[in-house]
Amino acid sequence: MRALAPIVVIAPDSFKGSIAASLASSAIAEGLRRVWPDADLRLRPMADGGEGTLDAVLSCGGERLSTGVTGASGESVEAGYGIVDAGKTAIIEAAQIVGLTDPVGTAIDVELRSSRGIGELIVKLLDLGLREFMIGLGGTSTNDGGAGMLAALGVQLLDTNGRVVSPTPQGLDTLASVDAGQLDPRLLQTTITIMSDVDNVLAGPRGATAIFGPQKGVRAECIGEVDARLSRFAALVEKALGKLARDRPGAGAAGGLGFALQLLGGETRSGAQVVADLIGLDAALQGALWAITGEGRSDAQTILGKTALAVANRAAKMKVSTTLISGAIDRDALPLLTHRFAGCFSITDGPMSLQDCIANAGRLLADRSEQIARLVAANLIIRIS
Amino acid sequence: MRALAPIVVIAPDSFKGSIAASLASSAIAEGLRRVWPDADLRLRPMADGGEGTLDAVLSCGGERLSTGVTGASGESVEAGYGIVDAGKTAIIEAAQIVGLTDPVGTAIDVELRSSRGIGELIVKLLDLGLREFMIGLGGTSTNDGGAGMLAALGVQLLDTNGRVVSPTPQGLDTLASVDAGQLDPRLLQTTITIMSDVDNVLAGPRGATAIFGPQKGVRAECIGEVDARLSRFAALVEKALGKLARDRPGAGAAGGLGFALQLLGGETRSGAQVVADLIGLDAALQGALWAITGEGRSDAQTILGKTALAVANRAAKMKVSTTLISGAIDRDALPLLTHRFAGCFSITDGPMSLQDCIANAGRLLADRSEQIARLVAANLIIRIS
Repeated sequence: MRALAPIVVIAPDSFKGSIAASLASSAIAEGLRRVWPDADLRLRPMADGGEGTLDAVLSCGGERLSTGVTGASGESVEAGYGIVDAGKTAIIEAAQIVGLTDPVGTAIDVELRSSRGIGELIVKLLDLGLREFMIGLGGTSTNDGGAGMLAALGVQLLDTNGRVVSPTPQGLDTLASVDAGQLDPRLLQTTITIMSDVDNVLAGPRGATAIFGPQKGVRAECIGEVDARLSRFAALVEKALGKLARDRPGAGAAGGLGFALQLLGGETRSGAQVVADLIGLDAALQGALWAITGEGRSDAQTILGKTALAVANRAAKMKVSTTLISGAIDRDALPLLTHRFAGCFSITDGPMSLQDCIANAGRLLADRSEQIARLVAANLIIRIS
Repeated sequence: MRALAPIVVIAPDSFKGSIAASLASSAIAEGLRRVWPDADLRLRPMADGGEGTLDAVLSCGGERLSTGVTGASGESVEAGYGIVDAGKTAIIEAAQIVGLTDPVGTAIDVELRSSRGIGELIVKLLDLGLREFMIGLGGTSTNDGGAGMLAALGVQLLDTNGRVVSPTPQGLDTLASVDAGQLDPRLLQTTITIMSDVDNVLAGPRGATAIFGPQKGVRAECIGEVDARLSRFAALVEKALGKLARDRPGAGAAGGLGFALQLLGGETRSGAQVVADLIGLDAALQGALWAITGEGRSDAQTILGKTALAVANRAAKMKVSTTLISGAIDRDALPLLTHRFAGCFSITDGPMSLQDCIANAGRLLADRSEQIARLVAANLIIRIS
């Protein structure tokens, strides 16, 4: 009777702008239970290291805590973080501290924004005895090269008069020297995993400012100057730390947080792969009949290693087929997607507006999941074999 | 290797307002061939006796012919008809002669419309030696109780002065007597099958005029009078022919053509069932892995015996699962539909307008068919058995 109680791994990304990955998982599970009430449904909400990473990781275990740190605009924010792996590993989601959404009324110009709060949180966690960090980049609003974080960790950024400068793109204008002598020594015993799928370098035409600056509010006419400041900052801080990082892939992630974290010894890994490891995706796939993933919109980007494809690839290694259910499947990308998945489906049940689709995403996702399960439950191939 | 070349029966209805059943069948087949190039695809476009019936029936054999007869508004129309069953049976689609769409500039008031052309076509076919007729009602614009058809077949409709009245709702106002003495005697050796899913009676609150009159242009204030004229006509013609039909289910189909055809000995059968028989649906389902049907919009009406359900029911009898792919699946009807089909899917691939969906129906249907075939081809259940 195994066919009546199949093992299904449910590992969607969030449906951006609509429902979180955990809600998407529950909706898919609800649909499947209508067909197989006794199914062994293994909910493994996914994320790519950006917004939603903490929720996804903690949905499969660990402890959620929070603490007050400085937000990107200088305001105080209560930043959530996670402790997993029997208390040994801290999960930090940069978007929780310097995310794109500021508390109402606090938003300021990107030139004044700082990643200081990330460093503050690391210090607090070092104080708690933690020495393993997994830091999800993505969804950040800062473009300070990680200067704020480094400053909070003890790196001194000084002007020609030896005065401390503000660790912001604007403050770095007067940066003259960097003193790393007071960098927190506990970082030497610390392992940092950077969750990111960005492989841009820190500066230049493929750098953080040129590529991601505009969407964070860097005005076109300022890109050259801000980029030059980050370059100068990078050269000084590299010299002070005796390490190079600015031209490494991923240095340009999260407005240069990737650069600063690599200087601290951080290793970059694909966010989706780290999350998959943390939530035990491979173990869940063991013996499974089927995997279902999904995301807000599937298009050519999906093929470039985003979450849904990471799920499909891991499942394929275990000889498990993965079906994709997304808010929308880009029509022109379908030929690319079609060979990666055992079916690509939209949650829509007819012509509808984007608003209707977003507002009813949970119900539509449950309904569509039920329908694909009914097709599977019809057990078509077995009948003729 | 049967799983690699499955037998699939493709039996969609037309996607009303978008693509004909035959085009829908081809689109589904195109999608399936991307997955199974060698599949044995059995295309059986369906219809319910209304518009598209002739196309559906002739797509599986027979000969298409046409001849000039009088349209509903008195204009001349070239009416298509079919000859099947080795030349023995004529297929007439009433909508081809008195359909809702008149040639430009010819449309007149429903009070002046007549079903005369249907009778003219029957006479021509009797002249050709045909004695078996299958007449699809549905999609007609007339409400003359079939008076026009009967007149063309020799029934005389007379006023108090013995003058012939016009066989229209208006003409019936002065009807005083009916003489059936010159009714075409060949009709006695003729078998008539009426394809219709309407079970309304001819007159009264559940009659043709009250229920279908308004959509044909009968003004609300005229319903009572027109209905009374049809009643009087019916009583006179029943008396003349020595038969009763006006209170039989289906007498109210096609503005009373159902009544007149029943008086001529016609037997009413579900249009979808007759079409299914004519296209050999059961034989096609023999040994099939899977059936796919579809329609423009699936809703609570779908459950009331429309084409898609007829396909599913016939397939179920042969232990073949049927999947539904429609332009839209009504959200609230899904719980009703879900147990009838092995999956109910919309052709949409994301939020879109109705216009986009209609304009791209063929491509979307092919794409969606491919995706459900990919899910089936993943062969999920067999892996764990």
